[in-house]
Amino acid sequence: MIKGETTLRVRYGETDRMNYVYYGNYALYYEVARSELLRTYGISYKQIEDKGIMMPVIDLHVNFLKPAIYDDLLTIITTIRKAPSVKMKFEYEIFNSNKELINTGYTTLVFMNSSNKKIIRSPQFFTNLFRKNFN
Amino acid sequence: MIKGETTLRVRYGETDRMNYVYYGNYALYYEVARSELLRTYGISYKQIEDKGIMMPVIDLHVNFLKPAIYDDLLTIITTIRKAPSVKMKFEYEIFNSNKELINTGYTTLVFMNSSNKKIIRSPQFFTNLFRKNFN
Amino acid sequence: MIKGETTLRVRYGETDRMNYVYYGNYALYYEVARSELLRTYGISYKQIEDKGIMMPVIDLHVNFLKPAIYDDLLTIITTIRKAPSVKMKFEYEIFNSNKELINTGYTTLVFMNSSNKKIIRSPQFFTNLFRKNFN
Amino acid sequence: MIKGETTLRVRYGETDRMNYVYYGNYALYYEVARSELLRTYGISYKQIEDKGIMMPVIDLHVNFLKPAIYDDLLTIITTIRKAPSVKMKFEYEIFNSNKELINTGYTTLVFMNSSNKKIIRSPQFFTNLFRKNFN
Repeated sequence: MIKGETTLRVRYGETDRMNYVYYGNYALYYEVARSELLRTYGISYKQIEDKGIMMPVIDLHVNFLKPAIYDDLLTIITTIRKAPSVKMKFEYEIFNSNKELINTGYTTLVFMNSSNKKIIRSPQFFTNLFRKNFN
Repeated sequence: MIKGETTLRVRYGETDRMNYVYYGNYALYYEVARSELLRTYGISYKQIEDKGIMMPVIDLHVNFLKPAIYDDLLTIITTIRKAPSVKMKFEYEIFNSNKELINTGYTTLVFMNSSNKKIIRSPQFFTNLFRKNFN
Repeated sequence: MIKGETTLRVRYGETDRMNYVYYGNYALYYEVARSELLRTYGISYKQIEDKGIMMPVIDLHVNFLKPAIYDDLLTIITTIRKAPSVKMKFEYEIFNSNKELINTGYTTLVFMNSSNKKIIRSPQFFTNLFRKNFN
Repeated sequence: MIKGETTLRVRYGETDRMNYVYYGNYALYYEVARSELLRTYGISYKQIEDKGIMMPVIDLHVNFLKPAIYDDLLTIITTIRKAPSVKMKFEYEIFNSNKELINTGYTTLVFMNSSNKKIIRSPQFFTNLFRKNFN
């Protein structure tokens, strides 16, 4: 299993007139969370793309438990429970600065050859990064 | 059952460097789709809020089947299968201009009293709008 | 001179907790306005890019006179006063549904060869579209 | 004079299909830059709003010198040259991770009483924060 933690601060432009973070903006937060998790394992998502691999999201699921508000410092826990195969699933839990769980969700990504847009298995260089984490 | 159709054109700023609509922006498209559906039933979401009711989204689910690209004219079919109670579920199907189904998803919204933030049942004025559509 | 008109409706996700359209989102509105103007002259911005030309924005100026609010139907008047050369300047005036002028601004775009990223003069096929409008 | 520095990393969702940060997203970066500058002077913009003061932006000017790309770590230098009066002007310079100046701009904000929406002078608690910086 892999677990990582990222913090980010809610921007004004991410709120809506309900005074809360707009529900569509959690996808951005999830993106930041999984990118930073990969970075701690020695690779940036940009480097993956530079190697000719894309990782498009094939599904997104978000549960809104409590609103996030402007300027709050959010902590996002990202978990990967299964070694990457054709797919890779990232789970997210977001906590506000009062340590309340306010949002949970997950995304499934696939590996794709950037040139021919074919779905592929997780490339060796990528799988190797997490070798010790799954058995 | 209620079914409605909306079209919208993909903006440049909604795409990402993968050349596709960024996965988080479908939430915006769903918002437009359900607002326009309500409008055809005689009420705008703004009027609902003006009556002291908020409708926060409690879950969001998106399946990305094919990418949407810049400038494409998308058609969104929105379906409500059950009369609003404490919750209201909107289902979405997005078609590109080649009439290919590229995205499906749904959102669940709840009714909330804006002043005390308590969850409430669908208010009478709202339920009445759809009276003929469910039985 | 060229003048065109576009309308668009303010989305919930474009507002912020001040209850107004977030100040950064007017850039999106300007983008829609100039794209739709080009379309009425027989070309989409996408077709321009498909011909190997990019038109990056080199400056953006926005004056916020009155706020735009959720669900308002905005009218954007776009004006081009000079034939495209190396640059092309688009001016914008946004009116709310009460016909009040709420926002003015302009953007300057340049023409760029997509492959070598060199700045170029307005290509002939493009200049020709507006031949009758400037003298 | 006041000068501050903030860093932020470009998100995938902030890029567009040109492969660059979408031109409208710099307004978000400027917002982060000025909020963080205020925070180093002992106040958050949220606390200002909590005191019944809004600071809407009345103009925005952006010069795009070079593109910002995905995952780049940007440094934003924010400068205030004049003590806040009815207006407050923030100037921005953005550098990429190669220390190249890629973007300059400024925004003017006004002080507004949140309840009656009247423009006011900079409130005393706010002016005091910067007392030593201007003479």
